[in-house]
Amino acid sequence: MESIDIKSVVIIGAGNVAWHLSKRIKATGFTVKQVYSRSLENAQELAIEVGAQAISNLEDVADDADLYIISVSDSVVAEMGETLSLKKGIICHTAGSLSIDLLSGADRYAVLYPMQTFSKQKAVDVLEVPFFIEASDDVVENTIRTFAETLSSNVSHLTSEQRLKLHVSAVFACNFVNHLFVQASDVLKDIGQDFSLLQPLIEQTFEKALQMPPEQGQTGPAVRKDMNVVNKHIAILENNKNQQELYKMLSESIIKRSGQ
Amino acid sequence: MESIDIKSVVIIGAGNVAWHLSKRIKATGFTVKQVYSRSLENAQELAIEVGAQAISNLEDVADDADLYIISVSDSVVAEMGETLSLKKGIICHTAGSLSIDLLSGADRYAVLYPMQTFSKQKAVDVLEVPFFIEASDDVVENTIRTFAETLSSNVSHLTSEQRLKLHVSAVFACNFVNHLFVQASDVLKDIGQDFSLLQPLIEQTFEKALQMPPEQGQTGPAVRKDMNVVNKHIAILENNKNQQELYKMLSESIIKRSGQ
Repeated sequence: MESIDIKSVVIIGAGNVAWHLSKRIKATGFTVKQVYSRSLENAQELAIEVGAQAISNLEDVADDADLYIISVSDSVVAEMGETLSLKKGIICHTAGSLSIDLLSGADRYAVLYPMQTFSKQKAVDVLEVPFFIEASDDVVENTIRTFAETLSSNVSHLTSEQRLKLHVSAVFACNFVNHLFVQASDVLKDIGQDFSLLQPLIEQTFEKALQMPPEQGQTGPAVRKDMNVVNKHIAILENNKNQQELYKMLSESIIKRSGQ
Repeated sequence: MESIDIKSVVIIGAGNVAWHLSKRIKATGFTVKQVYSRSLENAQELAIEVGAQAISNLEDVADDADLYIISVSDSVVAEMGETLSLKKGIICHTAGSLSIDLLSGADRYAVLYPMQTFSKQKAVDVLEVPFFIEASDDVVENTIRTFAETLSSNVSHLTSEQRLKLHVSAVFACNFVNHLFVQASDVLKDIGQDFSLLQPLIEQTFEKALQMPPEQGQTGPAVRKDMNVVNKHIAILENNKNQQELYKMLSESIIKRSGQ
């Protein structure tokens, strides 16, 4: 099937996703030509890592790259896309919740969404990260698929609406889960205990969820409808109303779900 | 320091905790004398595993065991404790949220709380499970500590109130986290995708939480205050009000916490 040869890439953005993606792109043999960030300092930090030119002015973006990857805050992707639509190469964004249509000002455009939580301080094996792609036409789809399959062993096509739902599931399974770890950590501080104490429990929770359907692995006072314990816990959280509300709502939700 | 020699143990209960605990007790060389459950069938299933006598009548509990471990629903621990307080040995319960005082009808009593999520179908390395103990006096404390240290490499003393808070933190980090996995799984079903797709994301979330304080590892639209995405996610959950409410509340909680 027809596709376009990708050799050089321009990265728009220098945040967590841009950081891990650029390093992987460089490591798999592509040329990272430029890294753009509003902050030249941030652009430089990443550009040095991947042997690219650092730029902080969109007018300086090269005309002759094969692929432009926009990896910035969702709110400015459309604006970036418009500016870049004058370039010849393929333009893509990496956002879970943005439609591909945002980039339709360009001739060839695509989405390249890596579903992972990226922090600069933490290494990620990008080969294992599931990538979800979408493209403006079949040629671009083939091109972006070949490119993505160089980066990752797990590449699938999803429509923009499916990708939005996928992103919601990722928010539940990652961002919200991490927030519950923050709550647990706050409760432990109250009794002078460290979060690391929960490591065996957390490990087991994760292992179990990947071994059996999570609804089967549900344990705890709420699913047992042990309201004595649930109410005792709610009472002891009296000095932290937000935590208390979270506890109530999650317990109620567990009880509802277990009745289904 | 003075302590009592533990050789034989009676297990009251045949649920998930009783199951894993009994097997570990047997494996470390103690005699599991009897397993009690209201259901003789359940008692038998576990008794066979640990070479014990199965009983379903409290009157049949032996008088001459060294340790009686009550591992039943919180609501019936007090009742069991009362019946067993006539026995000579030490009586303990395994509940995170119950005071030691529930057992004060006996001469010698204690708490032996293993902080872990136990399901019969899933193996647990009990040696790695943190155990929290409390006892009616120093001799019993020494005894139960020595016993617990045979089962686990991680044994600490906590008061009943500290243990209650510890249990709350465990509910956040395990039971509630699992419930969010259930939500994620439900959303994925909508787009014909399997929960296993989230494995790399979940692994990374978990690794990150143990590598840096969870408040530092928080990612996602809410902590970025990217309300476009948050609102888009809330809108797409319109057909599942409960899920939508959870999404809202957790996002608000993340925003509040990140401002602290």
